[in-house]
Amino acid sequence: MQFGAGIWLFGQFVDRYATDAYGPPVSTLEAIERAGAVGDLEVLDINYPFSDPDITVEEVQRALEAAGLRAATITPHIYTRDFVAGAFTNPDPAVRERALALCEEGVDVAKRLGAPTVKLWPGQDGFDYPFQADYRTLWKLALDGVRTVADMDPGIRVAIEYKAKEPRTHLSWSTAARTLVGIESLGRDDVGIVMDLGHSLFAKEAPADVLSLAHEHGRLFTIEVNDNWREWDDDLTVGSIHLIETLEFFLEVRKIGWQEPILLDQFPFREDPVEAARTSIRTVRAIDRTLDRLDLDALRIAQERQDALAAQHLLTDLLLGDVTADSAR
Amino acid sequence: MQFGAGIWLFGQFVDRYATDAYGPPVSTLEAIERAGAVGDLEVLDINYPFSDPDITVEEVQRALEAAGLRAATITPHIYTRDFVAGAFTNPDPAVRERALALCEEGVDVAKRLGAPTVKLWPGQDGFDYPFQADYRTLWKLALDGVRTVADMDPGIRVAIEYKAKEPRTHLSWSTAARTLVGIESLGRDDVGIVMDLGHSLFAKEAPADVLSLAHEHGRLFTIEVNDNWREWDDDLTVGSIHLIETLEFFLEVRKIGWQEPILLDQFPFREDPVEAARTSIRTVRAIDRTLDRLDLDALRIAQERQDALAAQHLLTDLLLGDVTADSAR
Amino acid sequence: MQFGAGIWLFGQFVDRYATDAYGPPVSTLEAIERAGAVGDLEVLDINYPFSDPDITVEEVQRALEAAGLRAATITPHIYTRDFVAGAFTNPDPAVRERALALCEEGVDVAKRLGAPTVKLWPGQDGFDYPFQADYRTLWKLALDGVRTVADMDPGIRVAIEYKAKEPRTHLSWSTAARTLVGIESLGRDDVGIVMDLGHSLFAKEAPADVLSLAHEHGRLFTIEVNDNWREWDDDLTVGSIHLIETLEFFLEVRKIGWQEPILLDQFPFREDPVEAARTSIRTVRAIDRTLDRLDLDALRIAQERQDALAAQHLLTDLLLGDVTADSAR
Amino acid sequence: MQFGAGIWLFGQFVDRYATDAYGPPVSTLEAIERAGAVGDLEVLDINYPFSDPDITVEEVQRALEAAGLRAATITPHIYTRDFVAGAFTNPDPAVRERALALCEEGVDVAKRLGAPTVKLWPGQDGFDYPFQADYRTLWKLALDGVRTVADMDPGIRVAIEYKAKEPRTHLSWSTAARTLVGIESLGRDDVGIVMDLGHSLFAKEAPADVLSLAHEHGRLFTIEVNDNWREWDDDLTVGSIHLIETLEFFLEVRKIGWQEPILLDQFPFREDPVEAARTSIRTVRAIDRTLDRLDLDALRIAQERQDALAAQHLLTDLLLGDVTADSAR
Repeated sequence: MQFGAGIWLFGQFVDRYATDAYGPPVSTLEAIERAGAVGDLEVLDINYPFSDPDITVEEVQRALEAAGLRAATITPHIYTRDFVAGAFTNPDPAVRERALALCEEGVDVAKRLGAPTVKLWPGQDGFDYPFQADYRTLWKLALDGVRTVADMDPGIRVAIEYKAKEPRTHLSWSTAARTLVGIESLGRDDVGIVMDLGHSLFAKEAPADVLSLAHEHGRLFTIEVNDNWREWDDDLTVGSIHLIETLEFFLEVRKIGWQEPILLDQFPFREDPVEAARTSIRTVRAIDRTLDRLDLDALRIAQERQDALAAQHLLTDLLLGDVTADSAR
Repeated sequence: MQFGAGIWLFGQFVDRYATDAYGPPVSTLEAIERAGAVGDLEVLDINYPFSDPDITVEEVQRALEAAGLRAATITPHIYTRDFVAGAFTNPDPAVRERALALCEEGVDVAKRLGAPTVKLWPGQDGFDYPFQADYRTLWKLALDGVRTVADMDPGIRVAIEYKAKEPRTHLSWSTAARTLVGIESLGRDDVGIVMDLGHSLFAKEAPADVLSLAHEHGRLFTIEVNDNWREWDDDLTVGSIHLIETLEFFLEVRKIGWQEPILLDQFPFREDPVEAARTSIRTVRAIDRTLDRLDLDALRIAQERQDALAAQHLLTDLLLGDVTADSAR
Repeated sequence: MQFGAGIWLFGQFVDRYATDAYGPPVSTLEAIERAGAVGDLEVLDINYPFSDPDITVEEVQRALEAAGLRAATITPHIYTRDFVAGAFTNPDPAVRERALALCEEGVDVAKRLGAPTVKLWPGQDGFDYPFQADYRTLWKLALDGVRTVADMDPGIRVAIEYKAKEPRTHLSWSTAARTLVGIESLGRDDVGIVMDLGHSLFAKEAPADVLSLAHEHGRLFTIEVNDNWREWDDDLTVGSIHLIETLEFFLEVRKIGWQEPILLDQFPFREDPVEAARTSIRTVRAIDRTLDRLDLDALRIAQERQDALAAQHLLTDLLLGDVTADSAR
Repeated sequence: MQFGAGIWLFGQFVDRYATDAYGPPVSTLEAIERAGAVGDLEVLDINYPFSDPDITVEEVQRALEAAGLRAATITPHIYTRDFVAGAFTNPDPAVRERALALCEEGVDVAKRLGAPTVKLWPGQDGFDYPFQADYRTLWKLALDGVRTVADMDPGIRVAIEYKAKEPRTHLSWSTAARTLVGIESLGRDDVGIVMDLGHSLFAKEAPADVLSLAHEHGRLFTIEVNDNWREWDDDLTVGSIHLIETLEFFLEVRKIGWQEPILLDQFPFREDPVEAARTSIRTVRAIDRTLDRLDLDALRIAQERQDALAAQHLLTDLLLGDVTADSAR
């Protein structure tokens, strides 16, 4: 397995209450260095603009090399102050233009860093209140924005990261299926989905189901992982709450033959970020080895009969040990 | 406005606790009679098989005529004991065949009663536990079932009613977008969506948004209405909880130019069903008249700016009266 | 560990869609026989009235003995047709009287069967709609009902089973804390709480927290277990979804020194009930043995520092094996 | 009606994505000035420490006077960087001491500003992960912290603001009932509840119910209002989503005879704060006038029968106009 991470995992966290932040500022270069310290990461999802306008792409490239990392995706910061009323769906055409201009810079940075993908997470696109927006206009603007970015460079593809809400109470790209509906209506091959395990749990989806659905539609571009309590994007360590569904998700990752890195998407507000990343990787490696021990034939037979009890027996034995065998000793 | 109802609104209710039912049995013919007593209904969604195998289609037709009603849709009972482990997605091919055979009878009844649509609500199709089923197999079976029913008669179209869960913990046709993904992949014009306001609230969608999205895709076949607490399909009277979003929904119904009946989908466990239907109709009529008073130009201007506060001013004045005007007196 | 079950686990299931039920009728005596077939159960929670008015308490006693079981609690059926508009909170005093009369019979049956506890689950007490009821009146009636039942016999105590909703959209006894507030206001020692793991997950509580909170207040009377998707009382097999929190719950059961039976509360609509019970017991036994292997000192140290990552390391190693140790080999 | 607001409504907003904030910094004195600009506010809930250590209590007092305001409550900032791992429940006794020291300063500021109440919102107290903390230790620390603050000054009472989550995934003071359990166990009169309408909706409570429950227990100290989508503390304008329940809440505010100010608790991230406050006040005034028109006798009769349909008729007529009357014209 190969691992990667969103660079934000190693940055400074802030929220609306701890407005003095959960720790001191971290520059893009420092964050890359921290990511390298994890020891097991190979790629990064890097936000653009960088933390400081003086930081050059070359400096970022050198920092990546020094840390033994490469850029997998570039994620333009289209959800900061300039865009709080929307990036692609902003009612003001001038702001929409600025969002696209920023994306164009992001596409350029992706090319220069050798990243094949620009990730779009339009976290301020959507609405907060009933009656606030005309939904067809909003959706058209959301689609137009993605199409325009996809048009920017034939060598850079676009991956959309859906999420149900936050910071808006309703985001335009909310679920895997809604994102598929939008992408299919664009009618082009270079737009796909970021399958984020946590966002899928948050959307009350069965993550293993939508992972393979996106794959079946040829739209699975990247995979991110974490966990949450299913009512917010808590960005906790992998497998810490929904271990069973996380196992099921990684089994599906195997079934579709995924060969690319798995990226961590965490916000360890109160933990050391390097340790938080290592904890997730440790758990994912342990899940992977546990899956080696899973009797796939027995599971296939259980699933052909949709036999939930037989499936649970397999899991109980796998995770907790076989009580029957033990009592027979 | 024209109104209709699901015939179950007038039937006998039972649940897993009040196993002796919330009231005495009601035959299909009696339920039609009760529906007629509402006084404002024009069409019914009728379950097949009828309550008693002796009841003929002709008797149903006569009962409808006597009650001043006609059949709008026929909904095959593919979620009763025979199908508790699934109808189209049942692991047993013989059960799947029985489900399709029942649908074929339903298509025939629809033709004979002059209903243009067979509604499919495969409420037992899906899964309950993680690891219980192979998701791609499940989805393929779900699609195959719908396609087969759509093939049955060129004059009868198929409308899929999505719902997130119940009685299964996860239903195959779960959200508007997921249903659109499935329908588009079938690649045919005679399969569409039942937009149920309550199911949309339950799915945490913005109902007005997905209503017009389905319409935009040419897939809006029928509309059902009710209300709930957004965490279960409570099937309460229209507008009793989410009045603001219900207003928004009916405004969108106007905007898309909907001319067909609006059907009530309620389960008045503890209320008189005729009165419960009348209460919903009374509220919908009042909503309709209230929308006549809404300043659409002002709303359009607010929505062009995505100005939530301006939109709320319009709504406050509309529903609660204009305080400013009053204090000026 | 000792196990028990609610007798309903072995009965006939029905819901509002599969109105012809998920299987044939099962008498109280047959259900007891099925419970005996599980092989690992010692006690039952038995509903009163029995399935058939002709069944006597003596017959039930003999059936229990034949099955190697005893009655732990009697649960009066105060949520059937007579009580759909409420039992203790019914607006009609005559119905409230009938509910109390039924409870009094239940208390008598408890005495005769040697069960120390009558369980009250007033599933029809509460409300469905805003503005439907005066909340203070409703709460007073809910308290009065419990007090009256507690007064019936000094030798029989009362355990209240809280649940957030169903069949009402809002139940009076909704959460552990709300139930504690009510019980404390009654000011008597013979009223306590049924801690149902599934209801606690459903209420979005931390089950291990409220278990020990109830214990600390001297109000923990009985424990029931199952699992669900946290948005409904799905009554699935134990540990099938929330394995981590189920482990934490059973660790707390140890910490408080619980010596009494753990009761299964399941509705295996689509599974064989005996096998469903066995599956849960198998999982609970495996959890219990897994807890034997948990390094409690290391956990204590982690919790003293509230160190989530250290705690997760312990759990990953416990459930998935120690990757580090392995790679060192 | 008298109105107030939390001072944060007029401050600078930031979240974890728009890390450059939704607008420029706002000092405590500027925020007070903005609050005065609303024109309808009489009191403020003021955070301590102030935005700048150079700002004195006297300056705040003068700013309040200039704005025609007075301090109703002081809320110590026990959820900023120093306290991200907990204030009263922090595992480190030194941090707990610092939290208490800050509260003591807050008590002193309350006295000097003539505010009778210190509000405690220990937003970092709780836990994020299963197995992270010992729940009984956590609860004991939560209670100890409140007791210590209540002991600080006999003239200053303590009001606890509960919330289900955020920024922690689980807060110690989570629901109205849980807070009542904690307060009652403290056994003193000077600790009560902040009833925040939005937090109550978020906790899936019936806000009118817990408002009067807290009042009945003599624990209702202050009232805050806003709205949200019931899955997060969105802090939207009052009545914008849950208008029906907001009406019911304000009816209960009347029933208990509340004479003190109603405070706005909003985070208008994307709106002008002064306008957002005015919008809420406009809605609340309109609700208040609408309640004048509500037929309380008819409602009482409906509620005595728990007649949901009759209650809905009253509301439909009140908010949407009487269709029957109209068609009779």
